[in-house]
Formats: sequence, structure tokens, C-alpha cells
Amino acid sequence: MSITSLGQAQFPSPVGHSVSDQPRIPAAIVRDPAAPKQDEVLFELAGPRAKLFFDPGRTRAGIVTCGGLCPGMNNVIRAVFFELYHTYGVMEVLGFRGGYQGLDPARGSEPVVLTPAFVDQIHHHGGTILGTSRGPVDMAAAVDDLIRRDVHILFTVGGDGTQRGGHEIFQQAQRRGHALSVVGIPKTIDNDVAFVARSFGYLTAVEQAVTILECAHTEARSVHNGLALVKLMGRHAGFIAAGATVANHDVNFTLIPEVPFKLQGENGFLATLKHRIQKRRHAVVVVAEGAGQDLFDRSPADRDASGNLKLKDIGLFLRDRIESYFREANIPIAMRYFDPSYSIRSSPANAADSILCDLYARNAVHAAMAGKTGLVIGYLHDLFIHIPIEMLVREKKQIDPDSLWWTAVLAATGQPARFE
Amino acid sequence: MSITSLGQAQFPSPVGHSVSDQPRIPAAIVRDPAAPKQDEVLFELAGPRAKLFFDPGRTRAGIVTCGGLCPGMNNVIRAVFFELYHTYGVMEVLGFRGGYQGLDPARGSEPVVLTPAFVDQIHHHGGTILGTSRGPVDMAAAVDDLIRRDVHILFTVGGDGTQRGGHEIFQQAQRRGHALSVVGIPKTIDNDVAFVARSFGYLTAVEQAVTILECAHTEARSVHNGLALVKLMGRHAGFIAAGATVANHDVNFTLIPEVPFKLQGENGFLATLKHRIQKRRHAVVVVAEGAGQDLFDRSPADRDASGNLKLKDIGLFLRDRIESYFREANIPIAMRYFDPSYSIRSSPANAADSILCDLYARNAVHAAMAGKTGLVIGYLHDLFIHIPIEMLVREKKQIDPDSLWWTAVLAATGQPARFE
Amino acid sequence: MSITSLGQAQFPSPVGHSVSDQPRIPAAIVRDPAAPKQDEVLFELAGPRAKLFFDPGRTRAGIVTCGGLCPGMNNVIRAVFFELYHTYGVMEVLGFRGGYQGLDPARGSEPVVLTPAFVDQIHHHGGTILGTSRGPVDMAAAVDDLIRRDVHILFTVGGDGTQRGGHEIFQQAQRRGHALSVVGIPKTIDNDVAFVARSFGYLTAVEQAVTILECAHTEARSVHNGLALVKLMGRHAGFIAAGATVANHDVNFTLIPEVPFKLQGENGFLATLKHRIQKRRHAVVVVAEGAGQDLFDRSPADRDASGNLKLKDIGLFLRDRIESYFREANIPIAMRYFDPSYSIRSSPANAADSILCDLYARNAVHAAMAGKTGLVIGYLHDLFIHIPIEMLVREKKQIDPDSLWWTAVLAATGQPARFE
Amino acid sequence: MSITSLGQAQFPSPVGHSVSDQPRIPAAIVRDPAAPKQDEVLFELAGPRAKLFFDPGRTRAGIVTCGGLCPGMNNVIRAVFFELYHTYGVMEVLGFRGGYQGLDPARGSEPVVLTPAFVDQIHHHGGTILGTSRGPVDMAAAVDDLIRRDVHILFTVGGDGTQRGGHEIFQQAQRRGHALSVVGIPKTIDNDVAFVARSFGYLTAVEQAVTILECAHTEARSVHNGLALVKLMGRHAGFIAAGATVANHDVNFTLIPEVPFKLQGENGFLATLKHRIQKRRHAVVVVAEGAGQDLFDRSPADRDASGNLKLKDIGLFLRDRIESYFREANIPIAMRYFDPSYSIRSSPANAADSILCDLYARNAVHAAMAGKTGLVIGYLHDLFIHIPIEMLVREKKQIDPDSLWWTAVLAATGQPARFE
Repeated sequence: MSITSLGQAQFPSPVGHSVSDQPRIPAAIVRDPAAPKQDEVLFELAGPRAKLFFDPGRTRAGIVTCGGLCPGMNNVIRAVFFELYHTYGVMEVLGFRGGYQGLDPARGSEPVVLTPAFVDQIHHHGGTILGTSRGPVDMAAAVDDLIRRDVHILFTVGGDGTQRGGHEIFQQAQRRGHALSVVGIPKTIDNDVAFVARSFGYLTAVEQAVTILECAHTEARSVHNGLALVKLMGRHAGFIAAGATVANHDVNFTLIPEVPFKLQGENGFLATLKHRIQKRRHAVVVVAEGAGQDLFDRSPADRDASGNLKLKDIGLFLRDRIESYFREANIPIAMRYFDPSYSIRSSPANAADSILCDLYARNAVHAAMAGKTGLVIGYLHDLFIHIPIEMLVREKKQIDPDSLWWTAVLAATGQPARFE
Repeated sequence: MSITSLGQAQFPSPVGHSVSDQPRIPAAIVRDPAAPKQDEVLFELAGPRAKLFFDPGRTRAGIVTCGGLCPGMNNVIRAVFFELYHTYGVMEVLGFRGGYQGLDPARGSEPVVLTPAFVDQIHHHGGTILGTSRGPVDMAAAVDDLIRRDVHILFTVGGDGTQRGGHEIFQQAQRRGHALSVVGIPKTIDNDVAFVARSFGYLTAVEQAVTILECAHTEARSVHNGLALVKLMGRHAGFIAAGATVANHDVNFTLIPEVPFKLQGENGFLATLKHRIQKRRHAVVVVAEGAGQDLFDRSPADRDASGNLKLKDIGLFLRDRIESYFREANIPIAMRYFDPSYSIRSSPANAADSILCDLYARNAVHAAMAGKTGLVIGYLHDLFIHIPIEMLVREKKQIDPDSLWWTAVLAATGQPARFE
Repeated sequence: MSITSLGQAQFPSPVGHSVSDQPRIPAAIVRDPAAPKQDEVLFELAGPRAKLFFDPGRTRAGIVTCGGLCPGMNNVIRAVFFELYHTYGVMEVLGFRGGYQGLDPARGSEPVVLTPAFVDQIHHHGGTILGTSRGPVDMAAAVDDLIRRDVHILFTVGGDGTQRGGHEIFQQAQRRGHALSVVGIPKTIDNDVAFVARSFGYLTAVEQAVTILECAHTEARSVHNGLALVKLMGRHAGFIAAGATVANHDVNFTLIPEVPFKLQGENGFLATLKHRIQKRRHAVVVVAEGAGQDLFDRSPADRDASGNLKLKDIGLFLRDRIESYFREANIPIAMRYFDPSYSIRSSPANAADSILCDLYARNAVHAAMAGKTGLVIGYLHDLFIHIPIEMLVREKKQIDPDSLWWTAVLAATGQPARFE
Repeated sequence: MSITSLGQAQFPSPVGHSVSDQPRIPAAIVRDPAAPKQDEVLFELAGPRAKLFFDPGRTRAGIVTCGGLCPGMNNVIRAVFFELYHTYGVMEVLGFRGGYQGLDPARGSEPVVLTPAFVDQIHHHGGTILGTSRGPVDMAAAVDDLIRRDVHILFTVGGDGTQRGGHEIFQQAQRRGHALSVVGIPKTIDNDVAFVARSFGYLTAVEQAVTILECAHTEARSVHNGLALVKLMGRHAGFIAAGATVANHDVNFTLIPEVPFKLQGENGFLATLKHRIQKRRHAVVVVAEGAGQDLFDRSPADRDASGNLKLKDIGLFLRDRIESYFREANIPIAMRYFDPSYSIRSSPANAADSILCDLYARNAVHAAMAGKTGLVIGYLHDLFIHIPIEMLVREKKQIDPDSLWWTAVLAATGQPARFE
């Protein structure tokens, strides 16, 4: 897929080496003679280009962070700024405050002018120094504001909704003849973005989740019929739950959105849990927040401010169902319920994510300076790529129940492949 | 206060030095000419005695852990065992399983015989390797069992209820002429035991709570009108809430059981919180679980299995009241609620608590080997002491609102001395 | 490249899904029309095969860990054991003690029979429960011993030398007609093995190194002309130094084996360091242990017990040269030298490495059970592959000075591309 | 002991409660009829006084940090500033840079004017934001400078040398009729200051040291005859070594300055170590840096810039002696030497130390505002006290080999009471 360009790049690049626009990275790399032929999906390589579209000394850039917290947002802000400032010599970088609302003069506060002093220590802290928010804003007003402020590059750090919003900003700017490069950096603690093998914040979240699982295991083992139930993040994909389960190795059951499960019946989750408790006198259960949504009677779906479907709380639901099941079975249990999402997502990035943030950020700057727009930085087969924004929002990444990931979970837990 | 002795100690001690029964430690050490005269409370010094009551080679000891989890329980088990085994040469030490229920053959499972291999790595893990439980057991059956197993020393690791139970065991054994030394090691993560300046697990709990407060601060600061509410442990005393507040320095309001507060009114908590939010756009609130219990309409009090008054959930109550208050005031807030108690209390002991556990445990062994009984090891003015069990259960330790502790909280938060 | 097979696999596999031998993974995936044509290197996919060569119920396996410590060795041992035991039903797994010496009855102690209880908690600890060693052993004696013990599968966890040794074991066994599957799991904390994008232990090492860099930065900044010099691991490749530098963002100079540097001269390292100190009054320098080896006058090379070239200590050398340089320049500096290698490599695996260990281990078991031998599990483009042992030892992985990795280091440090 | 006062305190205090000058805290609180009578040492209680000597709105204060790094220095700076600023309303607080050199205009740079923004996040970082140094300065010039800057309160954070220096500053100011309150906050990571039961930074140092000991244990256990030798801080007192040993429980030998030891001979350290190695095949040895100084041939003693006797490096000495001893005994060992002091002392304060720093700092401010001078804040029997500076420098705190501390070390290690 090719990437939209604002025009002919003509300024010299200060970066010592460069990547051309020619090389392509295939989405599928396994050569399997037995597999059916498919249309190939190919991506541009990210990296510094030989020529720049924007003249660094005369360009003003902005950055905005949106959606829920995720470890590494400050690292991204800092590396975007330093790459612009030190590597390219873009001296004016605005930090819009409070998510997209900060782009709307009617709602947000004045952006901050980033400086080396301002960003100096921010990477040691979780959250986002710029603030964040969810929900729609008046994109026309936002584009007015960007034009008024003479901003020609906008980095958008956020999930699907954010990137869709960024695309709209780019299109409106284009219609008005304002050369605006909008480059997205995918933020998804759930690790569920297509063509992004690992999103920043994910490994930190798994690390934090493992600590909670150790506590859960301790709680469960220290009392008779101890049952620790841990709800972890994962709206559409169970990567955090799966990763933490495999890393921790003390979980007995892991429930994720990709693998539906039945509660009732001989091979249902509740009966299986009962057998475990009767045999081993304790159990640790992990449930991703998006798991088991089919178990709820759904009223006409309501959505949150960002347009995401509001999930029902599977954690509390499961806690209640487990408790009533064991009560009816006349088996006393000691339930310990954990809901650590806020403390997981607000942690500072660990080393692996700090590196990843740095590389996402610098590649985003390279793309923008070359005049590319309407793209998101992806990371596939250990390479950074350019994903056209339309492709990103077309599909989600999930755990394939036949994959290594799920096999590893089954091996680590010893749970059956299906509760049915 | 003198300590009950099982009789004349006559066996030589293998410990290189000893402490006599004569020295006394006063409970009150400040000499204030202006203060009213009071009866003095004096304690025995803990430590190895010159002579032993029990012949180490012929003595069998037991240990039991009761009540809620607390960092350091495994350290205590390990140090009690090693002090008995290596220092004194008591080769048979039983670990009763599942709290006092493990002493009742009708309900518990067989005790484990402790060995160096069994305890080798347990101090690296939270919880208790022996298991724990709450609630009453048939103490007569327990004493029968101790006699049947020829156990002459019992270490009870637990809170008030546990120590009261231990006292009953001692008394029943005495009535039956079974020389049984019952020595308690006070376990209270809340740090609320009288004559115990610092209980094991407390500093670890504060350390863990501080980590949560950092997350709470990050969450609150990263969104507009972010309001992080953190419920911490502390049924009768706010030491964890206060300690974490002073260590963290980013909390704006701390509510503890010792300082009642009003929600409504111009100087009430809610109005003060509103002013803070309007001025600074975020706030962090800490509430100890025992705070504000007078705000509830109480039905005739129900008590838990250990006989403790069941507290109403001030965390959820406050969350709801804050949300409705701001809703009525038409101020949108982003509420982040944290309830980290299970993950705090199941952590392994930090270094400070590991040391403390070691010293409590060894002093408990010294007392038992000397034939003392009906006591709990205390820690006062940086000295380990013997507390007669009757004294321990007579009073609780709380934060004096005029003390250094509360002043430090007021200074760290900037909150008013009273919400009234 | 195809993999040696012990023969026709005929036993049914208990694993629910399988991967065939047909699909191939290319080593090079970037399609660049401008690049010169090269012979393609293709690898087999790792994963469970439809049929097994070994009958699980009648097969005895062994595992051995060799060389220096690396975070995750215990995780690998545990996951290999559990995959054999729980997934395949191989009930007898021997843990050879003390590296390859444990295979030589004349030198090692008796192997341990692994059990679920033995491995239960080992993944929480650094090092290797089986012990390790360096250096050559009598491979003929080792094969005798394996035959005598009726061991048909051997997992070798170690670096190049270990895998070469494993290859020799396989070849000798083959010559004697003993069907022995030798499957290697690459262990290199330096992350320098070809076709292994990320080796286990590497990210943990970077995480630990970052903590040290934070201390180094604190030390350097807290005194006038503070100069912190940190030696990190990396004999032939600077991945740990580079990764820690990019994650930490507070390093000023990073020196790695792949990029030679001059000390003297106007653009040499020492003069550049002096300018930094004079301008900013502090500096943090990271040096990989294999950097700058050309700066030494080398006597005829001596090698260590594993046959590796003994490196001269660049850390101490640099410390002395910096001190004398500043002394001569009459600039007082406060030197803080850090050599944290032992504490880095003995740490327990973090979550990311725990997951990786699990996947390496299970894929190794799949390969062995299918009767494959003479291979090492690789990890390329986010896929696990089979690397024929001859290929592994043919080349090393290093940081390409024109790559993203080195560019990121230059950006994070602000150092010149070359000191020359 | 009474404390020097600058004069009549007459300004009202903004603090809600107060402590009078009358109450006394005895240094010795154990009442032992068998002990010989001694002159009593009594201390003033620290805390806010009813009246202030300095008018907050017209007073300028300064703070200086000196000597080696210690966890918590930034916490002290921050809490001193906030107590002055928020509680008392002292709006001008200068931070002198680079230790006492910052007081000498000829040598130091201009002090920083502290603000809430400047100190906002400093407590999350180790080291000292103000910088530090060792060694003498021209105290007359320093006092000139304080007078010129109209500074009337000086907080000195440092060890003995610093407090002696502070005393000299106070005396010179007094001679010149400049009302200057000099209040010291004792900084000693070694925890060796008299009348200071626990100094800030100590527990953090122990916590960090324990982490290193876990690594040392892992290294030692993972190889045949592994011998890990860890040098820890402790010039005159072994509190860090002892505390870490008791907390970790995996050390086999701990050597401290207070307990001399012989290397040679049947009961010497080396022979005992050999027996351990032969029996258990690994050993962990901890040595405090001030231990075994009598083993060196001393040239006429040289002292460092602060006037402290330069210690010989017992760590390297011991490493060499152990290696040569085992070489001669023809026993191969694998030596792992750890020298983690810089990374320990530069860590941020843990929760326990953060609280302690806060309380030391606020009590220092209370004393200064009341016009007291020539004192250091002490901490005895869980109470904060005023120590006249002359008393502080008169004696050092050490581990009594007959005390609980040393007994606990002997029990945790199993080492003999003496090597002789």
C-alpha cells in the first residue's frame, strides 16, 4: 500500500543515512506451498528519507495524546520532541493538552511549547504530561486552530478512534489547502492493532499484571479453597491475559474474548473450576475484560464517548456467578477479587517499552518530515513500517486459538481447550 | 507487669549471652514536669535467658498462623524454626495448617513437620506457607490435640483474636497440668497493637501503598478533573493511610478512623474537595477502611468469623457520594477508584520487615524456651519486650490527632485539620 | 535449510494442532528492487508436528545448562519439563548438574530426576537450579553416559560453544547407532546469535542495566564534574549497551565492539568527553566489555575454558585513561565506576523473557519429540524456527552501524557517529 | 543537655499545636537494678514551639547538602522547603549548590531560589538536586556570604564533618552578631550517629543491599565452589552489612568493623570458609568496608578531603587473599566479587525513609523557627530530639557484639562468634 505524500521532498536531511520509498515488507512471510494463494499486502519501510518536504527551521509541529493511559506515552512525547529538536532542528513543537479537546479552542486550554527542560524527566513517570481525554471534538474547529497556529505536522498518539480522527483532520486540512502531515503512533495497551506486532506499553502491562498474579496466587494458596479472580485489560483481544498467564505460570484458568466459554454444564467453566478446587484447594482465574460478553443479556448497545461499545463488567459478573455456584454446591470458598487496571496502565514504561517508544516516535518524525501523511507507524516482523490509516482501522488483531499464543496458555494453565 | 512462668528454668542455654528478668522498660519515657502523674507501666525485656525451662532435645514445638495475610508471615515461620532448630537444638517443630482450624483434628489437616528444606525459600514469598483462617475453633479439642501430639510450645502468629485464643489454650492446658508455653507474635498489618511501635508487615504495606498512590496521582493528573480515590487498610487506625501519605507527598486528602469528618457543609469534605478540583483540576484522596463509619446508618452490628465488627465499605460509599455531589454541582469528574488491599497484604516482606520478623521470632523462641507463657512479644522504644497477653487485648494503638503523625499528614496534604 | 531427522515419526501427538515440515521462513524479507540478488536462506517453522518419533511413555529425556548465568534459565528448565511431562507424557526427565561436566560420570555429580515439586518455584529465581560450568569435557564419555542412562533426548541450554558440543554429542551418538535427539536452546545474554532476533534474558539484562544507568546518572549529576563510567556486558555485540542507552536516555556516550573509536586526537573520545564535561559538568559513559579491544597491545591470545578469546578489561582501562587525561588537563573530575555484570545476569527473568523462555522451551520439546536433531530453536521475524546447528555457529549477530539500533543510540546520546 | 537559643521567641506560630522546652528524654531507658549508676543524659523533645524567634514573612533560609550521596537527600530538601513555605510562610529559601563550596562565593555557583515547581518531583529521584561535595571551605568567607545574602537560618544535611562545619559557621556568625540558626539533619547511610536510632537512607540501603545479596547467592549456588564476596558500606559500623544479612538470610559470613577477625589459623576466617566450601560447595561472604583494617600494614595515615581516615580496600584485599588461599589448597573456586556501593547510595528513598526524611526535615524547621541553633535533630526511642552539636561529634554509634543485632547476624549466618 502506498502512502499519501504532501508533495515533492526537496530539503536536505540532517540524518546520516536514509531509507528509500522502494523496499516493501510483505504482511505474510511464511511460504507454505499448501496454503491458498492470497493477494499480497505490502508495506513501506519506515525510516529517515534522503530529502525532507518540510524545511526544519520554518516548521512548527504539534503532538497530542488521546484515550486511556498506557505506559510509555511520556516516552513517546519526549522522543518525538527530541528527534524534531535535536536531529532535525525543528525548534517549535506544541504539546496540545487534554487530548483532541486541546485542539478545540472552545474547550481546551492553551498548548504548551515543549522545551528540553519541560520533557527532561517525564519518561520516568507514567501517564501523559500533556493530559488526555476521550470523545469527539469539532474537527473543523480543530483544523481552524491548527491553521491559525501555523502547525504543519501533527503527531497523534492514540488508538483506533484517535487515528480515525487524525485522518479526518488530515482530510479537512487538505481540502483547505493547508499542507498538514498527520502521523499516528498506535497506542493500545491491549496490543490489538493490526500490523503492529507489539504496541508500546503492552510488555509493561504484562509485567505489572504478573506482579498481581503473584499476589493472587499467594492469596489463593494461603486459605482453604482460596479462589483468586483477576480481571485484566483486553476489550477485544486477550494478549495481556495470555501474556501474563504464560509469564507467571501459576494461573489455572484464563478466559479471553477470542475463545467463548460456557459457564454451565458438565464441561462448563464452573464445573471445571469446582473439580480444580476440590482437587487442589485453591485456584487462580484470569479473565480479560472483553471475555464472555455473549453471556450478558444486552440491551441496545450503548457506546462510550470515543464510540467504543461499552462492555459489561465480566469480572463482577463472574465473581457473583462463581460465588452463587459454590454456595449452591455447599462448598465454602474464599473469594479474592482483583481489578488492577488503573494501577497497571498508569505505570512508567519498562525498558523494553521505553526502547519501543523511542523507535516508534523517531520513525514517526522521519515520516512527517518527508511529507508523508495519513499513516500510522507499524511494527511487523521486527521492522518498522508505514501503515495507511485506512488499513489500520479496517481490522483488529486477535489471538488465534490455534496459534502458539493460545497453545502456550493451555500448557501453562492445564485448562481444557474449550469450556463447552 | 510480670509474666507467667511455667516453673523453674534449669537447663543450660546454648546462647552465648543472656538477659535477666530484672530490667524493666517503662511504657512512658518522656519526663514532663507539667504532665499529671500516672501509674507506671513497666515491661520485661525480651531476649535469651541464662537458663531454659525446656530441655531442647526433648521438646516438641508448634507454630500456627491466623487471620488475614500480612507480609512477613513466612519470615516469622522460618526464623522461629531456625532459632529452635539451629540455636537451641529443638529438632521437632510442627507447622499447624490453616490457622487454629489446624489444631482441631475434626476440621484441619495433619500438621507438617518443618525441616530446613521445607522453609528454605519461603521468606521470598508472601502469604503463609502454613495457610491461615479466621474464626473460632473448639479450643478444648485443640488442647487435646496438643497434648496428644506432646507439643509443649506453641507460637501463635496473629492479631488480637488469635492472641486471645492463645491465652485460652494456655489456660486450658494449665488446668489439665500440661506444661504449655504459648507465645504470641503480634501480626497486624494496620500497626494498631498497643506497646508494639512497629508490627511486621506494616512498612511493606506502606511501600506497596505508595506505589499505588503514584499510580493514583498519575491517573488523576492525566485527565481533566481527575479524581483518584484510594481505599487503604486500617480498620481502627490510619497508620497505613498516614504513612503512605507522608511517604508519597502527592495526596491531597487523607481520611482515617481517628479523625471523624463531615461530608456536607461549607467546611465539609465534599465542598473542600470541590474547591481543590476547581483550583487544581485533579485530586488524590486516601481513605482508610475504618474511616467514616459513623456516616452509615447501622443495623444491629454483625461481626465476622473472628468476632470483629464488620465495617461498611467506606470506599464505595465515598465514591458514590463524591460522584453524586459533583453530578449535582454539574462538574464533570473522571473518577478512578483503587482498592488494592489484597495485592498489598500478599506481598513478600521488604528488608525492614524481614529484619523485624527475624527479631520478633527469635525473641519469641527465647521466651518460650525459658518457660514463659501467656505473653506476646512487643517492641517499644526500639526494644523488644514481653507483653502479658491481658494487657495486649486491653487497648488498641491509634493515631493521636495531636501527634507528629497527624501533623505530618496535614503538612503533606495541605488539608484542613478537621472537616466540620 | 533442512533439519536432520532421526527417522520416520509414527506415534500420534497429544497436541491439538500441528505444523507441517513444508512451510519456509526466509531470512531476508525486505523486497528491495535496488538490492543485489542473493541466495535465499530459508528455515523450517518450529511447532508441534502431527506425528512423534519418540513414544512418550517410553522415552527418557535430559536437560543441561551451560556457560554464564542468564536470566530465564530456570524458566526454560521448568517449561521444558512441563511440556514433556504434562503435554507429551514423558515422565522421566533428568537434570544434569553443573553443565556438560554433569554428563561426564568422572567429573559430575548424579543428575536429578525432575518432578513438578522440584521445579515448582524455580522460575522466580535467577541462575540455574541445575548448576552450570564452562569448558570442555570428554564428549565420548558423555555419550557413553547418555547411552547407559537410556537418554534419547537432550536439551542443551547454552551459547555457541555449548551448541557445538551438543552437535558433537549428536554425531557421536549417531555413529554408535543411539537415536539421540539433541535440541539446543540458544542462551546469550548479549543477544548476539544469528537468526535469533531476541534471545531470552536479553530484555531482563537491559532492564537491570537501565536501573544501574539511573544510579550512574544520579551519581554524575550530584557532584561537580561527575563522570560515571558503566561497563556492561557485550563481548562481540553491543546490544545490551545500546538497548539500555536508548531505554534510559540519560547516557552521553556509548561505546560498543561494532564501532571502533579513537581515544586521542581532536575528535577522539577523550577530547569529546572533555568538551561535554566542560559544558555540562557531568557525563555518563557506557562501554560494552568487548569494545575497544584494538586499543590493547595483545600478547598471543589466551582463551578461556570455553575457548572464547579472553577480553582485556576495557572498563578499568578506560577508567584509568580518562583519569590520567583529565589529570593532565588539570580538570578535577569525580569518577564513579560501575561494573554490575554479576548482578545483572543473576536476576530472575522479567515477564517478557519469561514468555520467551516458555516458547523457546516448548518449541524445543516439539522438535525433539518429532525426532529432529542437530538444531537450535531460533526466533526470526516474530516466528520460531529450526536452525541447523552448522548455520548457527557460522555467524554472529552484531549491531549494524547504519541500522535503526545505532541511529537510536546516536539520537539518545547526541554523540558523534565516530570518534576518529 | 540544653540547646543554645538565639533569644526570646515572640512571634506567634501558625502550627496548631506545640511542644514545650520542658520535657526531657533520657538516653538510657532500661531500668536495671543490677546496673551501675551513671550520669543521666537527657534531651529536649523536638517539635513545633508555641512562639517563633523568626518572623516568617521577613526571614530568609538556606539549605546545603554535603558529603556522599544517601537515599532521601531530595526528600529532606523538599520537606524542609515545604514546611518553611507552606506551614510557616517563609517565602525565600535558598538552595546552596555543591555542598559547603556553594557557600563560598569564590568557589561555588550562585544558589538556587527554591520554588514549589523546582522541588515538585525531586523526591522520586536519588542523589541531591543541589549537588554535594566533600572537604573544607573558608568558613569565614561562607559566613560573610550568608550575612551578605541576609540568610538567618541554615539547614545542614550531612555527616559529622558537615555538622562540625555547621557549628563553626554558627559560632562565627555569633561572634559577628548575625543571628543565625544552624540546624543539622544527620546524614549517614552507615547509620552510625550517636543518639540517632535510625538515620534516613539506611533502610533503603539495606533494601538495595539485599537485592545484591540475592544475586550473590544465585551466582554462588549456580557454579561448583561458587564464592560470592560482597563489599557493603560501613566505615566504622556494620549496620548495613548486619541488616542486609539478617533480612536476606542467605549469607554465610559477615565481617564488620566492630568484630575483628583473624584470617589465618585453624579457627581463622579462611579455614572456616574452606570447611564451608568443602561441605556445601558454595558460600556468600559480606564484608563491611571498614572491617579488618587492622589486617593492613598502615603507612602514616592519610585522610580524605573531609578529614576522614582513608580506608584500605578490604574487599579487594579479601578477594585476593581468598583466591590465593584456595589456590594453595588446590581447591578451584569460582570467585564473584560485588562492589555495589555507588548503586546503593544513589537510589531513591524507599517509603520508610521517605517518612523519616519528612519528619527529620519538619522538626529541623520547627527548631530553627524557634531560634534554636547549634543542634542536630536526633531520633531516639521512637522520638525526635534535639542533640547539641558538641554531643553528636563526641561519639559514634556501633554494633555491640553482645547485642541483639550481632546475635541475629550469628543466627542468620551460622558463623562462629569470633574468628580467632
